[in-house]
Amino acid sequence: MQTTQTIRLSLPSKGRLESNALEFLAAAGLRVLKPNPRQYQANLPALPELGVIFQRPADIVVSVRQGSVDFGITGLDVIEEKRGDNGDILVLHDALGFGHCALTLAVPESWQSVTDVASLKDYAATLDRPLRVATKFPHLTKRFLDGQDISHVLIAAEGTLETAPTIGYADLISDLVSSGQTLQDNRLRSLRDGVIQPSQAALIANRKALQTRPEALEMARRLLEYIEAHLRAKDNLLVIANMRGESPEAIAHEIFTQTDVGGLQGPTISPVIVRDGGAWYSVSVVVRRDRLPQAITELRQIGGSGIIVSPVTYIFEEEPPRYKAMLEALSSKTG
Amino acid sequence: MQTTQTIRLSLPSKGRLESNALEFLAAAGLRVLKPNPRQYQANLPALPELGVIFQRPADIVVSVRQGSVDFGITGLDVIEEKRGDNGDILVLHDALGFGHCALTLAVPESWQSVTDVASLKDYAATLDRPLRVATKFPHLTKRFLDGQDISHVLIAAEGTLETAPTIGYADLISDLVSSGQTLQDNRLRSLRDGVIQPSQAALIANRKALQTRPEALEMARRLLEYIEAHLRAKDNLLVIANMRGESPEAIAHEIFTQTDVGGLQGPTISPVIVRDGGAWYSVSVVVRRDRLPQAITELRQIGGSGIIVSPVTYIFEEEPPRYKAMLEALSSKTG
Amino acid sequence: MQTTQTIRLSLPSKGRLESNALEFLAAAGLRVLKPNPRQYQANLPALPELGVIFQRPADIVVSVRQGSVDFGITGLDVIEEKRGDNGDILVLHDALGFGHCALTLAVPESWQSVTDVASLKDYAATLDRPLRVATKFPHLTKRFLDGQDISHVLIAAEGTLETAPTIGYADLISDLVSSGQTLQDNRLRSLRDGVIQPSQAALIANRKALQTRPEALEMARRLLEYIEAHLRAKDNLLVIANMRGESPEAIAHEIFTQTDVGGLQGPTISPVIVRDGGAWYSVSVVVRRDRLPQAITELRQIGGSGIIVSPVTYIFEEEPPRYKAMLEALSSKTG
Amino acid sequence: MQTTQTIRLSLPSKGRLESNALEFLAAAGLRVLKPNPRQYQANLPALPELGVIFQRPADIVVSVRQGSVDFGITGLDVIEEKRGDNGDILVLHDALGFGHCALTLAVPESWQSVTDVASLKDYAATLDRPLRVATKFPHLTKRFLDGQDISHVLIAAEGTLETAPTIGYADLISDLVSSGQTLQDNRLRSLRDGVIQPSQAALIANRKALQTRPEALEMARRLLEYIEAHLRAKDNLLVIANMRGESPEAIAHEIFTQTDVGGLQGPTISPVIVRDGGAWYSVSVVVRRDRLPQAITELRQIGGSGIIVSPVTYIFEEEPPRYKAMLEALSSKTG
Amino acid sequence: MQTTQTIRLSLPSKGRLESNALEFLAAAGLRVLKPNPRQYQANLPALPELGVIFQRPADIVVSVRQGSVDFGITGLDVIEEKRGDNGDILVLHDALGFGHCALTLAVPESWQSVTDVASLKDYAATLDRPLRVATKFPHLTKRFLDGQDISHVLIAAEGTLETAPTIGYADLISDLVSSGQTLQDNRLRSLRDGVIQPSQAALIANRKALQTRPEALEMARRLLEYIEAHLRAKDNLLVIANMRGESPEAIAHEIFTQTDVGGLQGPTISPVIVRDGGAWYSVSVVVRRDRLPQAITELRQIGGSGIIVSPVTYIFEEEPPRYKAMLEALSSKTG
Amino acid sequence: MQTTQTIRLSLPSKGRLESNALEFLAAAGLRVLKPNPRQYQANLPALPELGVIFQRPADIVVSVRQGSVDFGITGLDVIEEKRGDNGDILVLHDALGFGHCALTLAVPESWQSVTDVASLKDYAATLDRPLRVATKFPHLTKRFLDGQDISHVLIAAEGTLETAPTIGYADLISDLVSSGQTLQDNRLRSLRDGVIQPSQAALIANRKALQTRPEALEMARRLLEYIEAHLRAKDNLLVIANMRGESPEAIAHEIFTQTDVGGLQGPTISPVIVRDGGAWYSVSVVVRRDRLPQAITELRQIGGSGIIVSPVTYIFEEEPPRYKAMLEALSSKTG
Repeated sequence: MQTTQTIRLSLPSKGRLESNALEFLAAAGLRVLKPNPRQYQANLPALPELGVIFQRPADIVVSVRQGSVDFGITGLDVIEEKRGDNGDILVLHDALGFGHCALTLAVPESWQSVTDVASLKDYAATLDRPLRVATKFPHLTKRFLDGQDISHVLIAAEGTLETAPTIGYADLISDLVSSGQTLQDNRLRSLRDGVIQPSQAALIANRKALQTRPEALEMARRLLEYIEAHLRAKDNLLVIANMRGESPEAIAHEIFTQTDVGGLQGPTISPVIVRDGGAWYSVSVVVRRDRLPQAITELRQIGGSGIIVSPVTYIFEEEPPRYKAMLEALSSKTG
Repeated sequence: MQTTQTIRLSLPSKGRLESNALEFLAAAGLRVLKPNPRQYQANLPALPELGVIFQRPADIVVSVRQGSVDFGITGLDVIEEKRGDNGDILVLHDALGFGHCALTLAVPESWQSVTDVASLKDYAATLDRPLRVATKFPHLTKRFLDGQDISHVLIAAEGTLETAPTIGYADLISDLVSSGQTLQDNRLRSLRDGVIQPSQAALIANRKALQTRPEALEMARRLLEYIEAHLRAKDNLLVIANMRGESPEAIAHEIFTQTDVGGLQGPTISPVIVRDGGAWYSVSVVVRRDRLPQAITELRQIGGSGIIVSPVTYIFEEEPPRYKAMLEALSSKTG
Repeated sequence: MQTTQTIRLSLPSKGRLESNALEFLAAAGLRVLKPNPRQYQANLPALPELGVIFQRPADIVVSVRQGSVDFGITGLDVIEEKRGDNGDILVLHDALGFGHCALTLAVPESWQSVTDVASLKDYAATLDRPLRVATKFPHLTKRFLDGQDISHVLIAAEGTLETAPTIGYADLISDLVSSGQTLQDNRLRSLRDGVIQPSQAALIANRKALQTRPEALEMARRLLEYIEAHLRAKDNLLVIANMRGESPEAIAHEIFTQTDVGGLQGPTISPVIVRDGGAWYSVSVVVRRDRLPQAITELRQIGGSGIIVSPVTYIFEEEPPRYKAMLEALSSKTG
Repeated sequence: MQTTQTIRLSLPSKGRLESNALEFLAAAGLRVLKPNPRQYQANLPALPELGVIFQRPADIVVSVRQGSVDFGITGLDVIEEKRGDNGDILVLHDALGFGHCALTLAVPESWQSVTDVASLKDYAATLDRPLRVATKFPHLTKRFLDGQDISHVLIAAEGTLETAPTIGYADLISDLVSSGQTLQDNRLRSLRDGVIQPSQAALIANRKALQTRPEALEMARRLLEYIEAHLRAKDNLLVIANMRGESPEAIAHEIFTQTDVGGLQGPTISPVIVRDGGAWYSVSVVVRRDRLPQAITELRQIGGSGIIVSPVTYIFEEEPPRYKAMLEALSSKTG
Repeated sequence: MQTTQTIRLSLPSKGRLESNALEFLAAAGLRVLKPNPRQYQANLPALPELGVIFQRPADIVVSVRQGSVDFGITGLDVIEEKRGDNGDILVLHDALGFGHCALTLAVPESWQSVTDVASLKDYAATLDRPLRVATKFPHLTKRFLDGQDISHVLIAAEGTLETAPTIGYADLISDLVSSGQTLQDNRLRSLRDGVIQPSQAALIANRKALQTRPEALEMARRLLEYIEAHLRAKDNLLVIANMRGESPEAIAHEIFTQTDVGGLQGPTISPVIVRDGGAWYSVSVVVRRDRLPQAITELRQIGGSGIIVSPVTYIFEEEPPRYKAMLEALSSKTG
Repeated sequence: MQTTQTIRLSLPSKGRLESNALEFLAAAGLRVLKPNPRQYQANLPALPELGVIFQRPADIVVSVRQGSVDFGITGLDVIEEKRGDNGDILVLHDALGFGHCALTLAVPESWQSVTDVASLKDYAATLDRPLRVATKFPHLTKRFLDGQDISHVLIAAEGTLETAPTIGYADLISDLVSSGQTLQDNRLRSLRDGVIQPSQAALIANRKALQTRPEALEMARRLLEYIEAHLRAKDNLLVIANMRGESPEAIAHEIFTQTDVGGLQGPTISPVIVRDGGAWYSVSVVVRRDRLPQAITELRQIGGSGIIVSPVTYIFEEEPPRYKAMLEALSSKTG
């Protein structure tokens, strides 16, 4: 039944990254329909020509690089670890706003003198052997430590790295940190400047697919358009206030003197009829969600009342900047 | 405390159909308040005169037919199996948009020559005994197979029909299929034209209740009004764009040339004041959710910018067609 | 990382009250970010200077009274039981709309003659010992029974009070009742007029903090503003209809004759261009959610069509009445 | 991989009956190995020629009657409801000791005058219509009520029968009752002599299979042997005591005077060497678990000390009486 | 149905203490049968005259003290906190072997100079106010701190005490500690000698019930007998070895020279017939579970082979010492 | 508190392998005490000098090879994949009886001509590129395919390999298979002779630790002794029967003629006193659990009656063969 699906998007196959990715897409109007919880394939009814598959985060990068999958959503951590250097991975959007964490160096709390990379280097110099660093990210960790000229050996591990220093099979770790609670539970501490790779979910694509298949390029445009319009909408609210004024122009002038209610391109102003007469206008303006209290204060100061705030689902701009960036990246190199 | 509740609505008492029904009603503004998860009675605060009870899907049909319950939401599969022929069940709305499945004939994958009903009939003719068909829906299955003139005996079963062919107590099954995964897991395959009854959740009522009790008829009108307005809203979005133009009429003319932004009865156009002057207008239009990308493209082509998309909770039409259909059905036959 | 947090809000640390409080705040635009489910501290990104901690409901009252915490959300039941009489607890908002229950006297179902407080008193008079009342709320229960002049001894208990009469270590109980199901399961019945303290979630503050720390007072204002604007929005919807009319004033006149579509300060009326010409206007009005059916009927009666209903996130009034009440309370007594 | 499995045992496919059946078999040394929780087929390593399948309780009876399955473990309730009258269902063991419940008539608590079947009949006589009885067991219920000469109509239902009297689509119910808690929660009461069919798990077989296939008959013998030896062991304990005495015979004589330590066929008595010399003997005896305190008292009275109690896994008797009963049943009728 | 139950045992009503108590009793042959997980009453089939009820741990102490319940199993922590001084609580067994924890003083990790009670006292002396101690155990905590002459105020709390020092409403806490993990998670540390009350589950009884009701006294004897016999069995194993020797006496002599295989009162020695002839004996001996490796070594050293180890369910001694202690306590004071 | 723990055992940190390992050790008398479910360290009270840590299966092999951990229990699959060739991993026990699976080659079901390794090789020869094989076990897979001279490239993957052929990034997979259900669900089929590595849980040790630290060697001996004695006990039962006979020797002679009741070194025979007199003997014999029915039959044939079967906890042999094997392996090579 999926014969029309000629383009593929790979999503994380389990845990919080999966549920966050599904919620993010649903909120952007791209609900994924998984016919069965045990199945690793799904549909996306709003984009019927897109087949969805589920893979482990790192496998997504491998599949997109290889070209068996056209698009993927996964963490920047594994993207940077696994993207390789042939340029086949194109990062279309690097800030989807979920899955935040950072690949970070962490040392035992008891190493009181080691608080940053410099003091780690000093400490390493006092040892008669290289530092032993346990990690699931050997590529990024090696590049970082080499860049700092710190002598080390990497100890590859599958999981529960946090216990490595206690057990003694490593001196310190290079691991993903989000809230820091797990580090603290295991009496570890991240180095002040020890972030090797900040990470959040990103949208990637296979370069050759975009260069050679027009329908994949069009899909990239639509995915970016939906995602950008959704992310912009998420951070804004539509505010509607009633204001008394001599004319729409007079009210607009008042509004333009304010910082937070300038809006996207200018307020919409319509006349309102009130019970007790008088020249009233309804003013609609889009404001940033985190500036709402300030906007309400400004509107009140210039006479706004009966202020209603509504949600917005999408805000479409002229042309998404990331789409332009993608086109440039595509033309800059012929795969 | 429920003494004022003179009308009854029965909902499915467990599983996905229950949670989907509760979500559907809540989204339609009719949140059900269950004082206790173990209880089989509930209130619907927006319609205080309506008492809600929970029953198994098939028991709902029996209760509505019998008249001990006035309204019910359950699947078309059990409605058709159990409605009987006295006309006491009235289907007010047959497409609530959830609980999709289909009563379908399925045969072992190994029956390579049997792919549709015709080849099933051929196969049956080669046997020296009738086909044995396991099902939980004897009425519909018999009617279908008799209609196709296929000799068979029905084997009634409570559940896990899918194992019947393997175990050997039936040759094939007539069972509800949604994603087809369970069939596949059990190495069964549905016949290409083997759908006996397509199904989704529906709203039914007891005919006599509507004919004899005006408050039940009024409740039918309100339930249909809420449900229709909600279903219409779910499929549409409110799009607001700014457009430069000589006059509202000129803009409207531009819009009328487009396919997807025609809207319900025509756009709302208001003047907008912009920082840099010029004759700008705000255009509001309702568009179908699945045509949003096309609508955005159209608006951009005629100069739209700063496009905001907002959700809608209800869209009320003049008079719901299904309400009219119900009135006709009621007058067509005096119970 | 929380060094800038100088003000503290305490929330319930478990159960339904916790999840309801978190949902309420999120819906009001004040999403709490708990870095870890096991942690008892959290952030509130929209109000970065506010540190959130989690405590048991009664401990919240103690901490706010003591001043180690500035604000708290907890039930009126424990607020009244634990607030003491020094006036240090200020109730900023006493109806947050969740956590409804009531501290109530309940007797065994078998006490057929005891149905209200008066008959309880009669019954008590027939005993040669005081009534034994099991409760977790000794202060409120004693005050109530003393006020009724009923001779009693209180039996303090930790939990599962409902079994006390069966086991025999108390005659009746004074306990929190929400749906009444637990009482019924244990064959108890509440007295008709036996409500000692009705309860729902409330916002409290430490009086001295508001009096001496301006940033705490400003935080009180912002919390109240968000909460009030959210609660008002929750109960209203934005209704937009198209109406044919001679002029905006004529339409407004029509609307003012109606009961439910009067709106906050008057409708917003804009001209609409329709395909078939004619003088049409778009009318926007805010109506109460529970009056929606009536409002739709009214709009239709005066010619409204193509009615769209949208959600609202906040409705800000001139100045929240509860904020004014708080200022009065603060000045009325110098802690 | 199951090609050698020529005999089939069907077990309940879900809920408590499934887990109890699996625990029972495991405790009897017949652990079922389910390769996958989603699968409906399993192995029983101790009896490799036995294939295990999982079905709904009532479907088990149908399959065994039909002969597609040789053996089944399910409740006597559905066995009696569905066994039919052709004698093809043979009950090999009717008291496996789990799954206890009873098909019982229950009426609303408010029917104060109706406490037994006789008063139900009186009540029915006062009505001008037959009693409406909701049930999932029409065959047994009808037979019982007809036997009592009570006029009634049956209302078939799928589930949650307990709400039928409240909702009003039945007057009373005939349903499975175990602890009675669900009845009480729904304000129903069972009739004192209203048990239609007491039930617990039972082992059934297809008569023809036992008559015509020697390997099925041998399997019946082994299943019964394991089950009987396990059930007997479960109720007994092995008690070993040291006793001083002149001779084994003297001690045995003492023991034979006691009630509870007579044992299976007589005690085992061995000499024991003690540090301080003296003629001591070790006495082993099997006693019933529920008579253990009495047995300990008896042993002490005749000088027993250092009493050790050990578990037993099986107790094999000469020849299980139920096996004999089965052979008789088989010969009594030629299927 | 519980009319014959004239004696009452109260068990903890939730959490790990409940499940541990139920497991303990079941292992001791006293399985509790809870007809329904939501119910607070249960039966104990092995002791049919004993009714079981479930209460919060502290409520158990209150009920036993009061006499509405005869026996209780709960933690020593709440027993000591709530037993009062009238001697009505009799502790029959103070070491049931589960529910281990200790009421302990804990201070912030950052108080580096405070490591024991003496240094806490020094620290307190440097403050110009009493120490603030948060606790759920005011009675025991006050007695302990008064005994150490440390000036303090107690801050009563319901829960999550561990956050009190961070939040600032207490300086230190007196709380139950089991693994210490929760303290560590909250950056607290227990004082080296800060244990106020070590605790584990204990069996208590109402003194007057035992003094005045012979059936309660007999129940006390049976509970103690079962519990003691079970606890002793849990710590021992039955070891059976074959040994070659000239006579039973010679073998016994060998065994008596060993430390760990001395056994309860001496080994049981029986002749064994072996295939290859020779004088062999089977030796049975009870050894402590934690000395099993040593016992095996000893047996091998004196020629033991073919060593089998079996579980024991009970070991009954002449007369349980705790039962004697109870009788003495009862006679020492006339309630 | 773990200062005396100088030896380390690493166990799997999650999933079924963890729970199975904990159950296995508990059944062998080596219960692991995890103070906290979130903690990765634990104690083993029966062996107080052994510290337990939890790691991912493959990390266990790395840690034991490296020497930071002395002993580990994990699957043979990861042991063989990761053990390296320096001989530092010593497999003490390779059949702990749980965690069964096999690293196996599996191809799409649709490859009808490919059923074994030979036909896979034929198929590979028809391609103009090497076979692409997805696996988490590159070392073992490469060795196997190279050994078969099959041209291939390996595609490393993190998980959900089963979808690789469908998605198209590999042609076939080399993955762990236990029941085969997951393969079947994904329409894959294992090759008939495609098992690369059979696997179950095994006990490994670090060779150098055993060679240089006597306490580690002694711990190896004790772990093996407990494990072997437990595994042997698990497969046997103690059978006790009463038999009439002229003398113990006569009975023994009868028994020696039988196949299954020969027992470990010969039966224990004691005289039994019966009520009705006569020369009776009690015969104890250890028989294999899976031969129990045969043993019962044999005992009955030679006159056994009143047969009791008891569980055994351990069976200790002279000297465990695996311990001898270990000593040999240690001396064969000086690490």
